[in-house]
Amino acid sequence: MKFLRFTVKNETKQGVIKGDEIQEITGDIFKEWDYTGEVYSENEIGWLAPLEPNHIIGIGANYVAESDDLPEQGPDMPVFFFKPNSSVIGPAADIKIPQAIEEVKFESELAVVIGKEANGINEEEVLDHVFGYTIGNDVTAPQYFHENGHWTLGKSFDTFTPLGPVIETEFNPHGAVIKAFHNEKEKQNSPTNLMIVTIERMISYLSHVMTLQPGDVILTGSPVGAEFLKEKDQIECRIDEIGSLRNSVIKAKQPTKV
Amino acid sequence: MKFLRFTVKNETKQGVIKGDEIQEITGDIFKEWDYTGEVYSENEIGWLAPLEPNHIIGIGANYVAESDDLPEQGPDMPVFFFKPNSSVIGPAADIKIPQAIEEVKFESELAVVIGKEANGINEEEVLDHVFGYTIGNDVTAPQYFHENGHWTLGKSFDTFTPLGPVIETEFNPHGAVIKAFHNEKEKQNSPTNLMIVTIERMISYLSHVMTLQPGDVILTGSPVGAEFLKEKDQIECRIDEIGSLRNSVIKAKQPTKV
Repeated sequence: MKFLRFTVKNETKQGVIKGDEIQEITGDIFKEWDYTGEVYSENEIGWLAPLEPNHIIGIGANYVAESDDLPEQGPDMPVFFFKPNSSVIGPAADIKIPQAIEEVKFESELAVVIGKEANGINEEEVLDHVFGYTIGNDVTAPQYFHENGHWTLGKSFDTFTPLGPVIETEFNPHGAVIKAFHNEKEKQNSPTNLMIVTIERMISYLSHVMTLQPGDVILTGSPVGAEFLKEKDQIECRIDEIGSLRNSVIKAKQPTKV
Repeated sequence: MKFLRFTVKNETKQGVIKGDEIQEITGDIFKEWDYTGEVYSENEIGWLAPLEPNHIIGIGANYVAESDDLPEQGPDMPVFFFKPNSSVIGPAADIKIPQAIEEVKFESELAVVIGKEANGINEEEVLDHVFGYTIGNDVTAPQYFHENGHWTLGKSFDTFTPLGPVIETEFNPHGAVIKAFHNEKEKQNSPTNLMIVTIERMISYLSHVMTLQPGDVILTGSPVGAEFLKEKDQIECRIDEIGSLRNSVIKAKQPTKV
């Protein structure tokens, strides 16, 4: 099932996609929801990110170029980072380059949406706690990485987390291919089995640190090939079974003091 | 005015403290609220953290030992980090040491609660966007700091962010003294004018990166003197005008895989 959030005449709505139709729903997608009976077509709606995340948690440097490069054992302590919810935009909104810099990096990623509280779970239990999957573009300004290794600022600017277009609940994360097209030219194209830390391991690991909650979004890392975007560029992040994020890049209007 | 959250017979409530009374309120403290007419006394209630934060944002290494040590200019790029909401506990709840380690660090801090959306604001405007102030203990397990500088895991364990006891809206952050007592022995005692990056500068800076929202909590850094806590220790974080966090330290029951 494909869940989405959208606007009709400036009103925010939730729905599911059935064929050519968008059927409006009401309620909490993680608990109880129902159809309202209203139906829309794609050309009537404005797309929003498919959820307002609880937390957004990313993992650093998680893909190899080819399977021969996969280490026998993953890192003892993977690099995790948070992105703020204020950085989320929808699948067709503009990415804004901070005024003081000229380019930002795109990173096409499979995003896992937690549906059920997860505290200290084993790898075998992880997929039972997953609600579904969407696409995330982990936009990054490495110019704002701190020299001592902290990534927070460079990951946190407004518009730096395009999400969507839908949450797909019937999806096999192990068979998927993560792609990115920069101005229509393919730059990323890797199957998820090139991940160093598997989805099961990263979510089990995280659940032993913090209680994961419905609406937490885990960005599972970006394949080889991420590059920089400039003003007026277009970036498409694609996973065939889920859809595409297609975001244009503009310059932020606000003067950057930072 | 002192805002709090509390439980009575397992029901979560909000209130304000007036003299010896806790007057129950209903509504959104950042928008509109009203008195319910119910009144409780302190010995009837269980204390909760005074809000469920939107984001929790900390700043690294932000105090000097004495005013002569203050640099003429603060860092161009302060170190910021996020803590997850799942780490929040109330002013009297237990801090849990992860099973795989023997001690965690306490850090007594003044916590600023944002009340009004802040996007690209000047230092002079910052205090207009502040709702009030509370106390945060930025509990930290440096054993989980990544060798490449990432602090996320070491700051994110459940119970690692005691907050409270109240949000005080009538408070001068420039005249305050931040204290910590470890097993009743004073370990931290610094006025907020020993901060390297002032509250105005850090919030103005952050607001140029991300749109700050009502309920965002900024932990403004911990004075010199933070130390390690072991099982059965008691830690009190105190700011006289706001009150005290008094948390006991226990060992987490859950086996740590990580």
